Amino acid sequence: MAPRIFVLNGVNLGTLGRRRPEVYGTLTLNDIGKLLEEEFPEVDFAFRQTDHEGEMVGYIRESAEAAGLAINPGAWTHYSYALHDALDAVDTPKVEVHLSNVHAREDWRHHSVVSPVVHAVVAGMGAYGYVAAVGYILRRERG
Amino acid sequence: MAPRIFVLNGVNLGTLGRRRPEVYGTLTLNDIGKLLEEEFPEVDFAFRQTDHEGEMVGYIRESAEAAGLAINPGAWTHYSYALHDALDAVDTPKVEVHLSNVHAREDWRHHSVVSPVVHAVVAGMGAYGYVAAVGYILRRERG
Amino acid sequence: MAPRIFVLNGVNLGTLGRRRPEVYGTLTLNDIGKLLEEEFPEVDFAFRQTDHEGEMVGYIRESAEAAGLAINPGAWTHYSYALHDALDAVDTPKVEVHLSNVHAREDWRHHSVVSPVVHAVVAGMGAYGYVAAVGYILRRERG
Amino acid sequence: MAPRIFVLNGVNLGTLGRRRPEVYGTLTLNDIGKLLEEEFPEVDFAFRQTDHEGEMVGYIRESAEAAGLAINPGAWTHYSYALHDALDAVDTPKVEVHLSNVHAREDWRHHSVVSPVVHAVVAGMGAYGYVAAVGYILRRERG
Amino acid sequence: MAPRIFVLNGVNLGTLGRRRPEVYGTLTLNDIGKLLEEEFPEVDFAFRQTDHEGEMVGYIRESAEAAGLAINPGAWTHYSYALHDALDAVDTPKVEVHLSNVHAREDWRHHSVVSPVVHAVVAGMGAYGYVAAVGYILRRERG
Amino acid sequence: MAPRIFVLNGVNLGTLGRRRPEVYGTLTLNDIGKLLEEEFPEVDFAFRQTDHEGEMVGYIRESAEAAGLAINPGAWTHYSYALHDALDAVDTPKVEVHLSNVHAREDWRHHSVVSPVVHAVVAGMGAYGYVAAVGYILRRERG
Amino acid sequence: MAPRIFVLNGVNLGTLGRRRPEVYGTLTLNDIGKLLEEEFPEVDFAFRQTDHEGEMVGYIRESAEAAGLAINPGAWTHYSYALHDALDAVDTPKVEVHLSNVHAREDWRHHSVVSPVVHAVVAGMGAYGYVAAVGYILRRERG
Amino acid sequence: MAPRIFVLNGVNLGTLGRRRPEVYGTLTLNDIGKLLEEEFPEVDFAFRQTDHEGEMVGYIRESAEAAGLAINPGAWTHYSYALHDALDAVDTPKVEVHLSNVHAREDWRHHSVVSPVVHAVVAGMGAYGYVAAVGYILRRERG
Amino acid sequence: MAPRIFVLNGVNLGTLGRRRPEVYGTLTLNDIGKLLEEEFPEVDFAFRQTDHEGEMVGYIRESAEAAGLAINPGAWTHYSYALHDALDAVDTPKVEVHLSNVHAREDWRHHSVVSPVVHAVVAGMGAYGYVAAVGYILRRERG
Amino acid sequence: MAPRIFVLNGVNLGTLGRRRPEVYGTLTLNDIGKLLEEEFPEVDFAFRQTDHEGEMVGYIRESAEAAGLAINPGAWTHYSYALHDALDAVDTPKVEVHLSNVHAREDWRHHSVVSPVVHAVVAGMGAYGYVAAVGYILRRERG
Amino acid sequence: MAPRIFVLNGVNLGTLGRRRPEVYGTLTLNDIGKLLEEEFPEVDFAFRQTDHEGEMVGYIRESAEAAGLAINPGAWTHYSYALHDALDAVDTPKVEVHLSNVHAREDWRHHSVVSPVVHAVVAGMGAYGYVAAVGYILRRERG
Amino acid sequence: MAPRIFVLNGVNLGTLGRRRPEVYGTLTLNDIGKLLEEEFPEVDFAFRQTDHEGEMVGYIRESAEAAGLAINPGAWTHYSYALHDALDAVDTPKVEVHLSNVHAREDWRHHSVVSPVVHAVVAGMGAYGYVAAVGYILRRERG
Repeated sequence: MAPRIFVLNGVNLGTLGRRRPEVYGTLTLNDIGKLLEEEFPEVDFAFRQTDHEGEMVGYIRESAEAAGLAINPGAWTHYSYALHDALDAVDTPKVEVHLSNVHAREDWRHHSVVSPVVHAVVAGMGAYGYVAAVGYILRRERG
Repeated sequence: MAPRIFVLNGVNLGTLGRRRPEVYGTLTLNDIGKLLEEEFPEVDFAFRQTDHEGEMVGYIRESAEAAGLAINPGAWTHYSYALHDALDAVDTPKVEVHLSNVHAREDWRHHSVVSPVVHAVVAGMGAYGYVAAVGYILRRERG
Repeated sequence: MAPRIFVLNGVNLGTLGRRRPEVYGTLTLNDIGKLLEEEFPEVDFAFRQTDHEGEMVGYIRESAEAAGLAINPGAWTHYSYALHDALDAVDTPKVEVHLSNVHAREDWRHHSVVSPVVHAVVAGMGAYGYVAAVGYILRRERG
Repeated sequence: MAPRIFVLNGVNLGTLGRRRPEVYGTLTLNDIGKLLEEEFPEVDFAFRQTDHEGEMVGYIRESAEAAGLAINPGAWTHYSYALHDALDAVDTPKVEVHLSNVHAREDWRHHSVVSPVVHAVVAGMGAYGYVAAVGYILRRERG
Repeated sequence: MAPRIFVLNGVNLGTLGRRRPEVYGTLTLNDIGKLLEEEFPEVDFAFRQTDHEGEMVGYIRESAEAAGLAINPGAWTHYSYALHDALDAVDTPKVEVHLSNVHAREDWRHHSVVSPVVHAVVAGMGAYGYVAAVGYILRRERG
Repeated sequence: MAPRIFVLNGVNLGTLGRRRPEVYGTLTLNDIGKLLEEEFPEVDFAFRQTDHEGEMVGYIRESAEAAGLAINPGAWTHYSYALHDALDAVDTPKVEVHLSNVHAREDWRHHSVVSPVVHAVVAGMGAYGYVAAVGYILRRERG
Repeated sequence: MAPRIFVLNGVNLGTLGRRRPEVYGTLTLNDIGKLLEEEFPEVDFAFRQTDHEGEMVGYIRESAEAAGLAINPGAWTHYSYALHDALDAVDTPKVEVHLSNVHAREDWRHHSVVSPVVHAVVAGMGAYGYVAAVGYILRRERG
Repeated sequence: MAPRIFVLNGVNLGTLGRRRPEVYGTLTLNDIGKLLEEEFPEVDFAFRQTDHEGEMVGYIRESAEAAGLAINPGAWTHYSYALHDALDAVDTPKVEVHLSNVHAREDWRHHSVVSPVVHAVVAGMGAYGYVAAVGYILRRERG
Repeated sequence: MAPRIFVLNGVNLGTLGRRRPEVYGTLTLNDIGKLLEEEFPEVDFAFRQTDHEGEMVGYIRESAEAAGLAINPGAWTHYSYALHDALDAVDTPKVEVHLSNVHAREDWRHHSVVSPVVHAVVAGMGAYGYVAAVGYILRRERG
Repeated sequence: MAPRIFVLNGVNLGTLGRRRPEVYGTLTLNDIGKLLEEEFPEVDFAFRQTDHEGEMVGYIRESAEAAGLAINPGAWTHYSYALHDALDAVDTPKVEVHLSNVHAREDWRHHSVVSPVVHAVVAGMGAYGYVAAVGYILRRERG
Repeated sequence: MAPRIFVLNGVNLGTLGRRRPEVYGTLTLNDIGKLLEEEFPEVDFAFRQTDHEGEMVGYIRESAEAAGLAINPGAWTHYSYALHDALDAVDTPKVEVHLSNVHAREDWRHHSVVSPVVHAVVAGMGAYGYVAAVGYILRRERG
Repeated sequence: MAPRIFVLNGVNLGTLGRRRPEVYGTLTLNDIGKLLEEEFPEVDFAFRQTDHEGEMVGYIRESAEAAGLAINPGAWTHYSYALHDALDAVDTPKVEVHLSNVHAREDWRHHSVVSPVVHAVVAGMGAYGYVAAVGYILRRERG
């Protein structure tokens, strides 16, 4: 059966490709979705974006039964302990993804409140970071 | 021509597979080298390990002409500004790799002095993190 | 007339009883609601849960006319100054409730941004903490 | 053509005039809206209030095409990096407005996470702060 | 058999009812003792007060065999690691009680060195906090 | 009678219009004085500049009888507790003005030692910030 | 009637005159007692020393009815919040006395937890500091 | 010969008796000068006040030959390392005087940059603090 | 003549062997006393334990004439500046002993306020730490 | 034409050679002036000293047209953001000079608020530091 | 069979006996080696010194099979996380030795990055510290 | 006899002139060596570079007998306490040299762990900084 993987995109990521392209690249979220489908045709993706923390909490909860989840929490990364607690309650493989290298930007972007409750973190690889995250989840699943 | 990519492993990584396998896994550095060769037969890898900071500085310098470099600095990550300066002087695509999710461990492992001068960081994916790093370098080169 | 008391439960508390039972116990929010009704049959409870900060702000505002409010803000405890300001505007007796002893867990759980604007705080008593909160409100009301 | 200016009011500001009038004054948000219309009859105001961070992110995005925006983020000022990123993506003249002098209140009110991405900040002028913000936007536009 | 519960009151609490009644209320320690006896006639209370840290350490040790202990350490809360270690060595249910809401007072009162080694903390409920503490211990004992 | 308003400019502001125009604009202090007179012909301005802290203390004292004071302390903003104490002793409406948005510059410019003792703060509006300050003072005076 | 003034000396002060005379001088506590009696024959001194915090708490409580109290808490100055609370409950004029200039010694001696609840502090005047403290209490009483 | 003692008063102290009398008392600097002359008719006082740091540096230098100096630096206490260095170069007995108990006020008033280079500090005794300072200098001089 | 050596054990150490044996071992204080007597039959030991800080201060003072002192201050290590001052006044060889490796435990156990005034520190050697301390004192004495 | 170089000496430097000669040496400011004239007869020196911050600001401004400036700000180094802003506005080569090695003295001397806006810093070379500063300016000018 | 114990000496320890003898004593490393052989003739010592971090990492690795290791890392103590990781991977009894009482010296010497991964720490006993370390290892081995 | 002066260059300085020339200039280390020989033909230079900390420690030790040493530790400046201790053991005149003005760059470059144990520091003068260092050493030697 096709493994189901959640790809969750947080606040402000709906404008990807238009907002500060010199930092985040010119690909839209739609483009990233297509890229993943091309790279991993065998995967059943649940691809979501929301600007509402409460909705994101729900998506994370939903992903508990999936084969894994890749999450780019956007700015919530730096303060939403609500996402921390939601992720902490989910046991499936979890990867935190950032398009830009957050460690080379403002100080407050160096600290992630969700990193301690995910399995892996990837930052600075642009859209390829999502590919790496899914590749890791599949590899892990296979063993 | 085969792209040349440097894969640099820092202090204590020579004991990989034997030291704290519950944290770092059971693969040896040799196994990781083979894994990379299998995944990327088209790449000409320069695969190095050293416990001497001065030698690592030299390897980084050497990689300036390569298609990219993946570096796992081990414990130097957290204090070696010498590696920071060496990496800063090299313009090729650079990825910092950590086997474990350093953000979920001791406080001092959350801070990397080299992150600001690499293009991307991947942590917690075990040996697959090296694969992701090389995948990213190749994609970037092509694209 | 039956005193009306608001019992407000914040983000992620909808999964109570299933999420990390070794920390939060096996009672569901529903069970806690029933427990309160059994202990205090004379009280008219408004028992709410939400994962949306904006909705919680509304519930707090609603409770201004009630005999008191018990609130377990979940992870919002540690960063939602919005709840701080909402609670600050309400004069009825207010009790902050935590199921677990937050002071014995991660550092960031030691700091509550809402404690300065409630009358009392109870932590670590599990479901009984809600009973204590309501008991205090009633005692206070009676004088 | 009438310049369009967004006036955005964040969490808890719907209760203005009733909540802690000794700090925030007795004018309601409605009164402030009228005051602006009287002072600047030539302006087409988009006057909004929301307690939902996700909605505020949307309003900010909407204002990208306007002649300017004045925002009073309420308590979000102090932690919502989501608003930071949303504001950062908008190039129109932006002014942060606070009714009270936040610098003379609790320590945590001294720090604003959005100040670095607005053009100007005004605090402590009560309702007149909105007038000053709009006056600045118009002057800038003309000048 | 009547369960035995220790109620321990630390430094300066002998003056309760006379010292700063606007903060601590007008009940004396004696009044609190009587209140507990009325509320819980089935309990055999060991009710103590001391201004000597060394004596308090002894009382805590004594309570190891009891059904539980409620302790209001007074100002020792904020620096006596000796009480921390003494409490840490006792396995019976332990509740830390504060008459006032310490989180709404001076900064140094926000930090308790004993909280990490008790089961529960209650603050700001005045004399009722002792009732809640004992209620919790009994409930816990019953199961 | 014409209201008298003090407009006080601190250290280094005598070079305005020449020093770092990309930050502070090209208007000179003289230009700002004229702008104010044009905008508020009914006001009797006492417009001062000094590089001597002791003199500024005297000007602040002098303004005690005026209808209000607008002060741009320049770099003294960040360390002169002497100005803090001088301003604290004056009860007339007081506004702190900064030409640039100090919150978007170096860290040390984010902290003002005088903000807690003024009524309002305005930053980043360039010369218009003085207009806003005087507008606020007049509005306040009228009631 | 002779005014009664408490002069309280804390931990380790019993060895005064013998311990580190280059810092604390060669006068014994006895000498200081005599000096005070000579300077102020009209005062009825209660002159105490103890190495037990609990006893010092008692002495402070006793002094509540006196004309004033001078206290040299010794090393307790820097951590005994118990003395803070005891002093806070006493309304008589209170002076904190240190023989040496604590501000010119180790960092931890710069911070006193009792200073916020006394009326005056004197440090570095040696035995004369006690004279100044009593002089101040008498002047205050008279005046 | 009459001993000469410098009494130096720093920034804003010229308004003593008028500025915030609930904190600083109603005596003027003149009154304090007279009080000292009455208490110590045998002393030749050099009594100075200035709002200019550079002048104060000069007065300190002048006092090097005197029998001692009492200095109330006002707000300079908290940042003027220039006064620190000036005082450090003078060997005569030096006393730092504060009218109010600075340790019971704002945090920044707790730290004095000049305390490490004076012999004694007195705070909170009002005008009597000057008397105590001169008393100490004379006592020290005599022996 | 037999050298006299003080072995001082602070708060809570009376329960050694029973309290948290996985950390502190199963030897009682009595066992340690016997171990020392067996190892060093030539030494006249003064072996003490107290839970009262004031008594410990007295024991330290007493040891001034002895050949040396080994002290395990227990939890006082981390806050009792009273012991710091008492030890500072004693010139005999002084060794601070901890049974467990305090540096590998909670953060607050890493800091000792008495270490700066002893000659040597030994931690983590269990009962053998006392043997090492006495061995060092004897070696030092002999020269 | 002779290049004009400003040599500016700040607060307390007028006493050089007399104040703490073990730290600052026995040369007076006059001696240093002569030394510079001997070493660099071709230079037209503007050699200034002032204890008034406002005057120093003026001297810095004056030097804008010169070939360079060497400044020893004395204690202002550590807090005068006014000098920071004044230096920042001057483009000529600027060197910060300290007679002693400030990095080996008190903590507060390690931080200079002017270093970020000068081209070079020299500390600890005594009078020779001025020679090095001028040598650098000339070398730079020549090219 | 003779137990093998590694005694590892880090950077700069080759100059022992010559460098700052008032701090480190006059014994050379050679003398310490002889002292150990005399005290423990039954032990087979591997006594090493190196100034190269990479070599020390190798020595630590080598000691994994030994009966124990005593290490004096010299200045590496305070920053070499490489030694931390190397020691962490070795399970044999490990003792950290410092000749001087590092806790009584500069602040940065109070913090050791290797202490959390050794079994015991001894500081300030001079050469005898090595004897204590070996004594402890043997005792532990024997049980 | 020609005075012998050591000029020591640390990690990464071998690439000088090629690495980030906008920061470090275009001169190579070779060029700097030649410059020094031209400026000071009378000096016998020992000019060294190494990327190995252990080797640098050795060079410092070697320089103990020389007339002085100038050291540019590169990135080691900021963490190598090993160099601190090595320099501390050498009494000859020591100068720390930085090509760029480290105080105007990243925060971590502001702190040097070696500054407290050298006689002088020079930063930001490019190659001329070496000239100044040698000039100072010679001047000091002469007297």
